[in-house]
Amino acid sequence: ADGGPGANPKLGQCFTCHGRDGLAKVPDAPNLAGQNESYLVKALTDYKSGARKHEVMSMMAAPLSTADIADAAAYFSGIAIEVKAK
Amino acid sequence: ADGGPGANPKLGQCFTCHGRDGLAKVPDAPNLAGQNESYLVKALTDYKSGARKHEVMSMMAAPLSTADIADAAAYFSGIAIEVKAK
Repeated sequence: ADGGPGANPKLGQCFTCHGRDGLAKVPDAPNLAGQNESYLVKALTDYKSGARKHEVMSMMAAPLSTADIADAAAYFSGIAIEVKAK
Repeated sequence: ADGGPGANPKLGQCFTCHGRDGLAKVPDAPNLAGQNESYLVKALTDYKSGARKHEVMSMMAAPLSTADIADAAAYFSGIAIEVKAK
């Protein structure tokens, strides 16, 4: 999608729980900021195929196209994170 | 475990792929630094029970006790991360 992956309107539903900044807004949702892109593609693809099941995510992934999945993975993996030194 | 969760010897196997700093060292492994603690407990518990399957993780989780799982989740979620401003 032009305007970068984050401009894909289907990603709005992700931000509700995972945050536009990729930091989870609800207790059980994982942070996605800076996550490994191939891991995100696999997770969404598995939720869509049913290989991986989750009450919410199975529903969220169902309407996503391969391109939507690529946008979501590119968006969240593109958020730069830093591990703060101990 | 005394010396904090990171001192649990069983966590050594996690560092191989996920890194002592929680940043993945292999392409398909997810970063775990600063991840949501309850999400990590659920993921490891599901890999151990078989509710979630993965070629490597199912093997890794099998010998873990509930306490080991708590240590792993506490260790990785305890790594402070920062989302860098765009």
